[in-house]
Amino acid sequence: MQIAIALYERFTALDAVGPFQTLAGLPDAEVVFVAEQAGPVHDDTGHLTLVAEKTFDEVSSPDIVVVPGGPGQSDQMENEALLGWLRTADATSTWTTSVCTGSLALAAAGLLEGRQATSHWLALEELDKVGVRSTGQRVVFDGKYVTAAGVSSGIDMGLALVGRIAGEERAQAVQLMMEYDPQPPYDAGSPEKAPAHLVEMFRDLNRFSDEEQEQPA
Amino acid sequence: MQIAIALYERFTALDAVGPFQTLAGLPDAEVVFVAEQAGPVHDDTGHLTLVAEKTFDEVSSPDIVVVPGGPGQSDQMENEALLGWLRTADATSTWTTSVCTGSLALAAAGLLEGRQATSHWLALEELDKVGVRSTGQRVVFDGKYVTAAGVSSGIDMGLALVGRIAGEERAQAVQLMMEYDPQPPYDAGSPEKAPAHLVEMFRDLNRFSDEEQEQPA
Repeated sequence: MQIAIALYERFTALDAVGPFQTLAGLPDAEVVFVAEQAGPVHDDTGHLTLVAEKTFDEVSSPDIVVVPGGPGQSDQMENEALLGWLRTADATSTWTTSVCTGSLALAAAGLLEGRQATSHWLALEELDKVGVRSTGQRVVFDGKYVTAAGVSSGIDMGLALVGRIAGEERAQAVQLMMEYDPQPPYDAGSPEKAPAHLVEMFRDLNRFSDEEQEQPA
Repeated sequence: MQIAIALYERFTALDAVGPFQTLAGLPDAEVVFVAEQAGPVHDDTGHLTLVAEKTFDEVSSPDIVVVPGGPGQSDQMENEALLGWLRTADATSTWTTSVCTGSLALAAAGLLEGRQATSHWLALEELDKVGVRSTGQRVVFDGKYVTAAGVSSGIDMGLALVGRIAGEERAQAVQLMMEYDPQPPYDAGSPEKAPAHLVEMFRDLNRFSDEEQEQPA
């Protein structure tokens, strides 16, 4: 059971490590971090460095594909190294998955057309614009395509996938050993639950950043 | 605000990345991964490699100390490189924290004597044996010492700490952007909630591994 997690500069660390920590609990799991070039890849804070053990070319037919999101995803939307690999790997994968804005990369590779999927709450509109039917759900299964909402939702996706693949008891064992009995000290984890002024602030910042990206370089 | 996260061979990845992803949301956060030697450090699966940017000696007075847990922690209980650094860093830290069996390392460094603390549910008895008063809580504050239960609990600890340091609104903003609105597909995240036979199986495996460690090499 080979699980390939794609890395690129300015990915979000927990987007990758949530699915990693859960899917590593599959029987005979062999998780491999892959990137355009093997070696260190930096997260979006610049303070965390994960090592890609293999290049995309070296891992062409994983059983499970995982694409994390993060601010760096916007630089990947026309990067044929990643998009081409996603298409190749998807051709033989059992499951093709994403966390957060990773679903925009799957869409850019042409893999989500007409499908239901999800993404970070700030990216749902963008997902709709590229021909995907976004849902507000935290984890969305559509055939072999599994997408998760923002950052931390990759943990829920990973556990759900362990259950589908190896059965409920295995998933419960993984959950128990990682003591995943969440008790957030606040209840602000979605735009429906968070204070409205925070939601508005992030929507404004997001609009500003979209506009910036539309300026010529 | 310097946050130092200690790494050692066979740490558990999410133990380190949960606090990382939350504490990185503090104002002016500078998170640095530290280890006995700078460079790649492997997690307990052998499939994930995080890079320690600095040696312990190079980061002697962080504001926040974080020690993750993992199977490799048992090799650290007499490693003066880590334990000495914990004592040095703790002398001037504002907060000294751990996730999972990281609390056993804090205890081995002599920092938790007579205090309340927590750890992975399988390690609570061991914590009691070394003079710490274990609690079944997910996150325990005792003065400046903050300990979290198993693996995923470091996310809750990190958010609680962001709230204490930078206020509720900042913590809510961090929670919203990481979309931490957990929806585990199963309810097996603690020994009280998981099927009894799974709890018993892991307790037995744990006893077996304790006995193995007591054999002469």
